[in-house]
Amino acid sequence: MTRYLILAEGFSADPHYGKTMRGVLRYRREDVVAILDSERAPGDTEDGVPVVRTLEEALPFEPDTALVGVATQGGRFPPAWRDLLRSCVEHGLDVENGLHEFISEDPELRDLAARHGVELRDLRRPPAGVSTATGANLDVQATIVLAVGSDCAIGKMTMALELDLEARRRGISSVFVPTGQTGIAIAGWGISVDAVVADFIAGAAERLVIEGAARGGELLWVEGQGAILHPVYSGVTLGLYHGSVPHLLLLCHEAGRAEMEGVGGGPHPIPRLRELVELHERLALPARPARVAAVALNTRNLDEVAARAAISAAEDETGLPADDPVRFGAGKLLAAFSV
Amino acid sequence: MTRYLILAEGFSADPHYGKTMRGVLRYRREDVVAILDSERAPGDTEDGVPVVRTLEEALPFEPDTALVGVATQGGRFPPAWRDLLRSCVEHGLDVENGLHEFISEDPELRDLAARHGVELRDLRRPPAGVSTATGANLDVQATIVLAVGSDCAIGKMTMALELDLEARRRGISSVFVPTGQTGIAIAGWGISVDAVVADFIAGAAERLVIEGAARGGELLWVEGQGAILHPVYSGVTLGLYHGSVPHLLLLCHEAGRAEMEGVGGGPHPIPRLRELVELHERLALPARPARVAAVALNTRNLDEVAARAAISAAEDETGLPADDPVRFGAGKLLAAFSV
Repeated sequence: MTRYLILAEGFSADPHYGKTMRGVLRYRREDVVAILDSERAPGDTEDGVPVVRTLEEALPFEPDTALVGVATQGGRFPPAWRDLLRSCVEHGLDVENGLHEFISEDPELRDLAARHGVELRDLRRPPAGVSTATGANLDVQATIVLAVGSDCAIGKMTMALELDLEARRRGISSVFVPTGQTGIAIAGWGISVDAVVADFIAGAAERLVIEGAARGGELLWVEGQGAILHPVYSGVTLGLYHGSVPHLLLLCHEAGRAEMEGVGGGPHPIPRLRELVELHERLALPARPARVAAVALNTRNLDEVAARAAISAAEDETGLPADDPVRFGAGKLLAAFSV
Repeated sequence: MTRYLILAEGFSADPHYGKTMRGVLRYRREDVVAILDSERAPGDTEDGVPVVRTLEEALPFEPDTALVGVATQGGRFPPAWRDLLRSCVEHGLDVENGLHEFISEDPELRDLAARHGVELRDLRRPPAGVSTATGANLDVQATIVLAVGSDCAIGKMTMALELDLEARRRGISSVFVPTGQTGIAIAGWGISVDAVVADFIAGAAERLVIEGAARGGELLWVEGQGAILHPVYSGVTLGLYHGSVPHLLLLCHEAGRAEMEGVGGGPHPIPRLRELVELHERLALPARPARVAAVALNTRNLDEVAARAAISAAEDETGLPADDPVRFGAGKLLAAFSV
């Protein structure tokens, strides 16, 4: 069992940039001993986990691994972080990192890690041999579901994890297929498809659905990435879509979000759900038609009455079942994927 | 001036795999002294350039640079090629390579190159500092045209080059923006957007349109990559689309091609042109609507009567001007982009 210290400097209270931290807290809570963020008040906690302000304060909790818990845009380390990573290594902690900048390729950190006998793990480092897609994905003997979304950071991974959990509770041979650093940190396997060579996105996705089936999955929930009309990440989104060859799509959206967040260059409006359903279905490969089976709505910013109203409105607009599986349970949505 | 020996072993007569060779022959003919392919007959030529069967036969033509002229799927070197590359280096030739496998990172070739004082240039190696898109692309003061297509290897690069040439002939400040290894070999600048980290596709495209404008382009012809419904390369296609933020699209198609070529996993039909027009327009970012202005039809496999009929049919189907700019000149299509 791992004893994680989550490094979330400056972002432990930010729902957008603390994505990896929040995912691991939600799905591997038992493995987290402390969170580090010097900007928080003494005695603060997150989901019951103590938030400390220095590495020294964290040591009494006996962490064995420091997990980089923030995902910055562009995936590189702010300079101040390097001191922190060095300190972790000097205190004998392994480091797990999900950013695009690989710590295991940093000569200074690598030497330091070797001297202290600790491991540097880059969750986004592509495995050897990832290449272009071959078409073997179309032979996978499983029902493949891909989570797609109207924007980044709206809960696509969480929705897929909740549906997978519910399916397994019901005895279905269901497997969550991780495609990003947080999913990998949670599930312990996977490929960060946004970190492979651009020509190999679909190839990486193909390899993942083949592995998901090999792990016994008859129903695969593929973690989504980005959004099809996202000005920064849409390439990864479409490559993942075509490489994972889903039969069914789970369209994820945050109720009330009208524009993409954290994107430069002026407003980037989110199209209507109905349009997103149609656009996604038209983008399926002719060799593997796909339909949107349900809408997963993130209602975290609404009270319960407003949440239920938003779910009804999504159903009326799309003609599809909709629900917030985190808030109201995943049973209703899961029924839409029964095959 | 460079004196190229084009290495096209086994593929010099193949229109699909000899893409880099054909592009350089067409647009930098004056820089090519010989082509190497041991499988051709003695005395063969390609576009008037002698085809030799061994490196020794090539030396009398005094090449100074060996250009890898084939693009294999997955972009890696067949083992037999390594001997050839070693020989080229030992004979004092610089090597330019457009495959995903970087020769400048190969310890043996690198040592050999250092000993022989030659340069190894990887055309697909991303420049330093490529990162995620910022939105600065939307500020570029130029009319941006992106070539898109119904499949790979149908002539998107050639169409864009022909339109750029014609525009410059007419005194327009036009710039061809290279996004792949062949375009880079021809134009001498650019980024191979299929070789960057997947998250950075749009960022690389953004950087290219900014550079195209900085090079004096008021009209930019962005080389297209892949196809929006291509099972292997669609991620690159969409990331390039959204990162280059085109105002106008040139839809390229090969007359008579009904299925994508060279793709595994069973038949991958090409949708109707009309559907491709609509799909591409719907995929434009809301912040930068784009319309298809014309259809460029590759009619190389048709006689002239059939070619003209295919062009008429494309116009009838799409309601857009269509032509084969290689065969009939680029003037008619260029008129559709006058702004």
